[in-house]
Amino acid sequence: MIEEVERILRMKGKAIEKELEKAIPRKGTPNLNDAVWYHMDSGGKRVRPVLAILTCEALGCDTNKVMPFAAGCELLHNWLLVHDDIEDGDHVRRDKPALWVKYGISHGINVGDFMSLKVVELILNSSLDDKTKLALFGETAETCVKTAEGQTMDMNLRGQRNPSEKDYMKMIELKTAWYLTLPMVGGAIIAGRTDLVPKIKEFGMKVGPAFQIADDLLDLTEGKGRGEIGSDIKEGKRSIMVVHCSSKCSSGERKRMFEILDKPREKTTKEDIGYVKALFEKYGSLDYARQKARSLVDESAQTTSSMPAELRSMLDDFARYLIERKK
Amino acid sequence: MIEEVERILRMKGKAIEKELEKAIPRKGTPNLNDAVWYHMDSGGKRVRPVLAILTCEALGCDTNKVMPFAAGCELLHNWLLVHDDIEDGDHVRRDKPALWVKYGISHGINVGDFMSLKVVELILNSSLDDKTKLALFGETAETCVKTAEGQTMDMNLRGQRNPSEKDYMKMIELKTAWYLTLPMVGGAIIAGRTDLVPKIKEFGMKVGPAFQIADDLLDLTEGKGRGEIGSDIKEGKRSIMVVHCSSKCSSGERKRMFEILDKPREKTTKEDIGYVKALFEKYGSLDYARQKARSLVDESAQTTSSMPAELRSMLDDFARYLIERKK
Repeated sequence: MIEEVERILRMKGKAIEKELEKAIPRKGTPNLNDAVWYHMDSGGKRVRPVLAILTCEALGCDTNKVMPFAAGCELLHNWLLVHDDIEDGDHVRRDKPALWVKYGISHGINVGDFMSLKVVELILNSSLDDKTKLALFGETAETCVKTAEGQTMDMNLRGQRNPSEKDYMKMIELKTAWYLTLPMVGGAIIAGRTDLVPKIKEFGMKVGPAFQIADDLLDLTEGKGRGEIGSDIKEGKRSIMVVHCSSKCSSGERKRMFEILDKPREKTTKEDIGYVKALFEKYGSLDYARQKARSLVDESAQTTSSMPAELRSMLDDFARYLIERKK
Repeated sequence: MIEEVERILRMKGKAIEKELEKAIPRKGTPNLNDAVWYHMDSGGKRVRPVLAILTCEALGCDTNKVMPFAAGCELLHNWLLVHDDIEDGDHVRRDKPALWVKYGISHGINVGDFMSLKVVELILNSSLDDKTKLALFGETAETCVKTAEGQTMDMNLRGQRNPSEKDYMKMIELKTAWYLTLPMVGGAIIAGRTDLVPKIKEFGMKVGPAFQIADDLLDLTEGKGRGEIGSDIKEGKRSIMVVHCSSKCSSGERKRMFEILDKPREKTTKEDIGYVKALFEKYGSLDYARQKARSLVDESAQTTSSMPAELRSMLDDFARYLIERKK
């Protein structure tokens, strides 16, 4: 899959960039256009546009048709990141100061709002027919609404000291799975295969959570481009490991773990992070998370079994890539 | 016009509310649905939905057709207010704690994002035909993009000590006029009169700035539901009075005025506000602002002269109402 992603980025990376630059020129209102590009240029894997292109390609559709929507998916993802970094208090994104740290919270909120409407414009200004555009708006709006609900649940969970796996799974389905699924759904719609949308959503509701769990794990192993290991612990996130560990550890350990999680992030020490990580290891919570991600990916293979062969093979590869990635 | 607005609110107020409740049920995810309604229930003049309905009615169109879009305009306005209050550091909105004060900044940002996508859903789920929906999306997206550009310009101007009237007028055209114009534009599109859109926009580019200038003035006379007089001075806003006064006063007075404007808002005293207000009076800046608003409204009458009689009469009334209102 890595090779596939790289092949698409080699072939289409510049075209994605061009679509984005057409929608948001690099030069424009100071503290707006330059702020968008400060953030966009920080990198990111461009997984979402690639996924839209790969879906379209696997269904035999001219990939040029999907480009504006693919660029829209990347913009949508980055709009959410810009706002999430403020909401979560994350200072570093992709090893650079987060947009709000460089431009201030006020510009950060406004820049995100600007990007969100540019997603609408990208779809609207494409050469797709009216029915297709409206179908894409429907899927995009529903996705963003679900994502906002999931983000609320995530914040609501932070205060809790007995988070359940059921609540956690519901939260990541809303917060992560929907908008990882959107590029595939849109790709199928543009390829004229709306009949595949329900199955693609079933697939997404398996691999999306697997992706989030892999992300939870990365925070403690490779870091997430935030200049540190354990940034989720500082934030007090109820990750799958927290949920699992709190159901296994002693009441004393649970008390200390939540005290650390609920500290203001600037007061969390390296020792605190070490303590929580050791607790996860003691109770096998990291292994539990790895297993959970793997079994979700296994389940996802059942949802692709009835799909056209090329799409099936691409999606199965993608599912494995999601949990094997190192960043 | 007040009577017209009240007549529409009597007839259609509940229907607007119902559309909003259909889009965002009062009960739902805690800290999301309840937060939206905490804000929406704080009141507001509901000028925008009324304006969409009045435009539609004046053009002889069944007003039921415009209701989802009208509700969308109200939601859009309130999404922007929720985010603006964070961006501007305003603690009070409509005499109640601002949403972000009650729910925190993180929820405040996320709730606004949620509301923005509900605007898309309201249009999408209406019974309008595809062409009309897409035209509404186009106008809505363009409006929001312009508004974000205007908000950036407003923030950029705050640091400046020689703001020009040209920059101020450009800023309020982008920040205020576009999204006051949208309900009228949408109303005309829904009534099948897209031919009127360019003239309605010309009208809006006159009355929108008049509305903002009236708003600048209200901040120093009646207050703006923010629990105090002079909240714009605390924020350091470059209002039309600041722009005018700084071009007339002595260099010593200018220095002191900008020192006050650029103080952190919690350090601005009542005496500071009194000083700036007295300076405005000394140099006739309040009168200048009143005159400017009036002449913009006079100019707006030229843009309506070729419109259908009923629409013309409604818009001319509306223009006068905007600068005569007391809140």
